[in-house]
Amino acid sequence: MKAFVTGAAGFVGSTLVDHLLAAGHDVTGYDNLSTGREEFLERALSTGRLSLVKGDVLDAGALERAMAGAEVVFHLAANADVRFGPLHPRRDLEQNTIGTANVLDAMRATGAGRIVLASTGSVYGEPSVFPTPEDAPFPVQTSFYAASKVAAEALVAAHAEAFGVQGFVFRFVSILGERYTHGHVVDFCRQLATDPSRLRVLGNGRQRKSYLYVHDGVRAILLALEKAGGKVNVFNLGTDETCTVSDSIRWITQELGLAPRIEYGGGERGWVGDSPFIHLDCRRIRALGWKPELGIREALVRTARFVWGDR
Amino acid sequence: MKAFVTGAAGFVGSTLVDHLLAAGHDVTGYDNLSTGREEFLERALSTGRLSLVKGDVLDAGALERAMAGAEVVFHLAANADVRFGPLHPRRDLEQNTIGTANVLDAMRATGAGRIVLASTGSVYGEPSVFPTPEDAPFPVQTSFYAASKVAAEALVAAHAEAFGVQGFVFRFVSILGERYTHGHVVDFCRQLATDPSRLRVLGNGRQRKSYLYVHDGVRAILLALEKAGGKVNVFNLGTDETCTVSDSIRWITQELGLAPRIEYGGGERGWVGDSPFIHLDCRRIRALGWKPELGIREALVRTARFVWGDR
Repeated sequence: MKAFVTGAAGFVGSTLVDHLLAAGHDVTGYDNLSTGREEFLERALSTGRLSLVKGDVLDAGALERAMAGAEVVFHLAANADVRFGPLHPRRDLEQNTIGTANVLDAMRATGAGRIVLASTGSVYGEPSVFPTPEDAPFPVQTSFYAASKVAAEALVAAHAEAFGVQGFVFRFVSILGERYTHGHVVDFCRQLATDPSRLRVLGNGRQRKSYLYVHDGVRAILLALEKAGGKVNVFNLGTDETCTVSDSIRWITQELGLAPRIEYGGGERGWVGDSPFIHLDCRRIRALGWKPELGIREALVRTARFVWGDR
Repeated sequence: MKAFVTGAAGFVGSTLVDHLLAAGHDVTGYDNLSTGREEFLERALSTGRLSLVKGDVLDAGALERAMAGAEVVFHLAANADVRFGPLHPRRDLEQNTIGTANVLDAMRATGAGRIVLASTGSVYGEPSVFPTPEDAPFPVQTSFYAASKVAAEALVAAHAEAFGVQGFVFRFVSILGERYTHGHVVDFCRQLATDPSRLRVLGNGRQRKSYLYVHDGVRAILLALEKAGGKVNVFNLGTDETCTVSDSIRWITQELGLAPRIEYGGGERGWVGDSPFIHLDCRRIRALGWKPELGIREALVRTARFVWGDR
């Protein structure tokens, strides 16, 4: 198939591109290189089957031109800085919601038939059911990031209903692995590189989180594309484990051979809109035959190793 | 209190303004008069306690200037043409989602503390639970209109979490009553005025819908504002009854003294994204002491009388 990947030079995007090429597909990557890195695509570009277009999803004309001929669109470009929503409340709306509207409009113009949207488990807000299934009670949003993603999901569904595109929505837990470029592991490594004797942590360390290794996530997406036949297919993607922020610090510092003093900022939430407990029910994707190969600890260790080497 | 009402010259907006003035509040109305009518505010303007500003919610500067000093914002301005979403997929996003973002930004700039958002029971898509409660399973959207409203709800909640504004979200069934200016009763009356001998109807007539009389809806909003103390307060607003499209035609034509031949277009849905069955569980608002004074039939009859006289 001919695939179009927005955010192709990013952490998840570039890993997806590698998998698509390995499976024999041709790929057009689209990335504004604001957080993506061309070096992540070096190997992919060397195959001659990836063409990379530098462009922004907010540039509707360039997006439509680049998408010409694509059959499946993987829409991964997004502002993923969950924490800083309140500092610039329009950024998530523009980059994530309006960005998705532009992608869908370009699909209508070019005739692309299927869309994969990278969404987030944060759309469940602070859920009342754990592990949280895809049909959990209608949530109240707690962050600008999740609000922008729930809006993007809704746009995908409305386009599927009106124009017959097939939609795939993946609600990810936090993704870990090689090429990880932002998030708490980066924050921790940066601090420890400056001062290995202490580590300041947002919240009380007891927030309970769930993580998924990037290659497991990408395999899930490709399996769902192959096997799910609904008009709008929504899947949680995570492991069946959780760990606390404190666990995650212990594993990371052990891997780096450091023993910093941990200074907790306090409070149940690390930031406004942080979910103190994330644990998704992933039976729907598992029913298609998928299971993650890496547990949280190993994924965290590999991430820390990459991030530490990437300084 | 000092109230700010977007869509103040509209059907629901102008009725709300009348109630606010009657309760002794001062009101600034904001309306672009695209579908609103100044005549609906004649009596309100004569009190001297309504100031009406002609402006669009997409004009962020004018919106913020007009809002200065307001304590409570009733955000009713919206594109409400549910049926025509696929003809212009950006309209709902712009007028409803981005419009709401502008209202929330203006509130942050002016210090307004509470927002009422007029949302819709359509956000439940095609629900699996009837009557449908506010915490029904996480829905898949089926229309651009509902997608834009679910996004607006999410923005209200994110602002409530980040900036401490208090949010009130009302998910309405279809509203009926005097000043009704668009919707199926208008469509029917227009057709019958042209040719009283026949009536063309979208769908098979068996779509089961729920309606609420506008004064009952407005009383519910004001009661919730007084009694609900949560950060984000979500309420369904409807009656405990439903009726079919065929019932509604029978009552309307009886009221008008006409006996047209009914020609059904066929199909379970009247249009793309139409919900074949809407019935909301309204126990949450009823628990505050509210109940509707008018049933569906009487509300439909009064609407038909108004619309017929309004030709």
